[in-house]
Amino acid sequence: MSLHDDSIIIDGLIISKFGKDVFEDMHRGGLTAVNCTCCVWEGFTESMRNVMQWKAWFREYGDIITQVYTTEDIKRAKKEGKTGIILGWQNLSGIEDQIGYLGLFKELGVGIMQIAYNTANLVGTGCYEKDHGLTDFGREVIAEMNRVGILCDLSHVGPKTSEDVILTSKKPVTYSHCLPAGLKEHPRNKSDAQLKFIVDHGGFVGVTMFTPFLKRGVDATVDDYVEAIEYVINICGEDNVGYGTDFTQGYGQEFFDWITHDKGFGRRLTNFGEVINPKGLRTIGETPNLTAAMEKRKWPEPRIRKVMGENWMRVLRDVWGA
Amino acid sequence: MSLHDDSIIIDGLIISKFGKDVFEDMHRGGLTAVNCTCCVWEGFTESMRNVMQWKAWFREYGDIITQVYTTEDIKRAKKEGKTGIILGWQNLSGIEDQIGYLGLFKELGVGIMQIAYNTANLVGTGCYEKDHGLTDFGREVIAEMNRVGILCDLSHVGPKTSEDVILTSKKPVTYSHCLPAGLKEHPRNKSDAQLKFIVDHGGFVGVTMFTPFLKRGVDATVDDYVEAIEYVINICGEDNVGYGTDFTQGYGQEFFDWITHDKGFGRRLTNFGEVINPKGLRTIGETPNLTAAMEKRKWPEPRIRKVMGENWMRVLRDVWGA
Repeated sequence: MSLHDDSIIIDGLIISKFGKDVFEDMHRGGLTAVNCTCCVWEGFTESMRNVMQWKAWFREYGDIITQVYTTEDIKRAKKEGKTGIILGWQNLSGIEDQIGYLGLFKELGVGIMQIAYNTANLVGTGCYEKDHGLTDFGREVIAEMNRVGILCDLSHVGPKTSEDVILTSKKPVTYSHCLPAGLKEHPRNKSDAQLKFIVDHGGFVGVTMFTPFLKRGVDATVDDYVEAIEYVINICGEDNVGYGTDFTQGYGQEFFDWITHDKGFGRRLTNFGEVINPKGLRTIGETPNLTAAMEKRKWPEPRIRKVMGENWMRVLRDVWGA
Repeated sequence: MSLHDDSIIIDGLIISKFGKDVFEDMHRGGLTAVNCTCCVWEGFTESMRNVMQWKAWFREYGDIITQVYTTEDIKRAKKEGKTGIILGWQNLSGIEDQIGYLGLFKELGVGIMQIAYNTANLVGTGCYEKDHGLTDFGREVIAEMNRVGILCDLSHVGPKTSEDVILTSKKPVTYSHCLPAGLKEHPRNKSDAQLKFIVDHGGFVGVTMFTPFLKRGVDATVDDYVEAIEYVINICGEDNVGYGTDFTQGYGQEFFDWITHDKGFGRRLTNFGEVINPKGLRTIGETPNLTAAMEKRKWPEPRIRKVMGENWMRVLRDVWGA
């Protein structure tokens, strides 16, 4: 059995055109668990509808996917050879103005929520506009996320709000899918100081592979991705790093227009051009190549296991309590 | 220890002004579990808000109430000396046009839903207007309620829709809070034939005490209530009968106006006048008097235990699967 097949593999972020094809590719890629985005700009009712859609998928594709509420469910998924689905949000638009909604979504299985997506919301500010930090409502939201056990994600959050959340949260927080500014300057990338700051405060970093944020851009390969992970490990330590691809598999221009405009339809925030994943890791099903690239780079086996999933397990257990 | 204190006591329906006073009175009355109404005319979002409010109450008053998802939770409530709260609906307005919402509410703890409240909705028709039976959408709703394990309540449902649900449902259904038309004719009361029909098809009857529907009206006492229960037992058998008071404790005229107008604000459907509960059972805290009245009437102890709660336990376990 290959190291990949024998390991717990956790992808810290996928936002793909979910359905049969993507689920089968997750299975092909040997993914044990995935943080699957089910809210970007949506309000309360639409976010509930998204959860409802996932519940239908869990029934329809129950032979290859299974819902994750706790890390025990991830272990069970591994044993059953299925991919565990962690429902996650990339924005807090879904709670509208109700802190009490957090507990309802948590009970339905939403275990990870990003504080803001690129722009300002009621809680804080995203990374594409001037950031004044957490609002007072935002402080209450963080306390409630801590209480009910939802992991705070800061990948698309502005630097001041991120700092506020890192200092406010009583549980570990994460950049679930980010790249180091040390390799390429970009509003979405995190400086060495930011990477050090989050882990110094008990937090966690998932490294992404989105080529517009990588040094070699669309020419990047899976080896460039491993290089970026290694750069982050050198700052954060190998116990505090995981991976989070940001696969947008199956989506076309309409989707990219939606995510790159404020609230889905407002002002344009950025333009990625064509999204091409690193060579060797163009599809979710090729995830074994990531493990293989780490082996080729002569990483020790324990480091590979930690970065590919074991570290995520520890952080999720710390935040979820089980 | 009195028989009341030693028994599992389940009130099949309470729709009171929930909060500290009512919870303390439930505790005083020795209630092990209660079906508490949290949707009458509300749509999806408001029904979610109601669930959210209950979650806050479970935290705030966790010393005397606890949420019930399964009958194991009811046993635990008894052991801990708390009142178990079953969240229940008296209308399907809360799912709007989405069958998939049923599973979300079930997961949040809504274990009992009435098919219609007095008037027509998308699923069927209430008991205060001409009833054409279940809609085709309604048939899909019943199948989904069966699948996820939500008990179908027919108390305020019209006779044709009730018959359709009884014949369509693959799990036991209930009149959770009704009185026999054999003692007093009323649109809300059920004929001997209807009472027999539901139990002949595996269903269950909870007997209510609402004085406008009792033979002696506002002059009724707890003994008249026991007489009505006995009347129903003689038709349905003592294994298929429970009690469901319909306590509206703490509410004033505004509430009664809301429940007696279509959708809360439309045409007037009925007018109860002053609501006075039977003497000896004016408040929830006096529930031990109901058990005592059964003892006074020389009911055998096993019959009392069954009607006061054990029968409800069996039906709920059958429908919920645990």
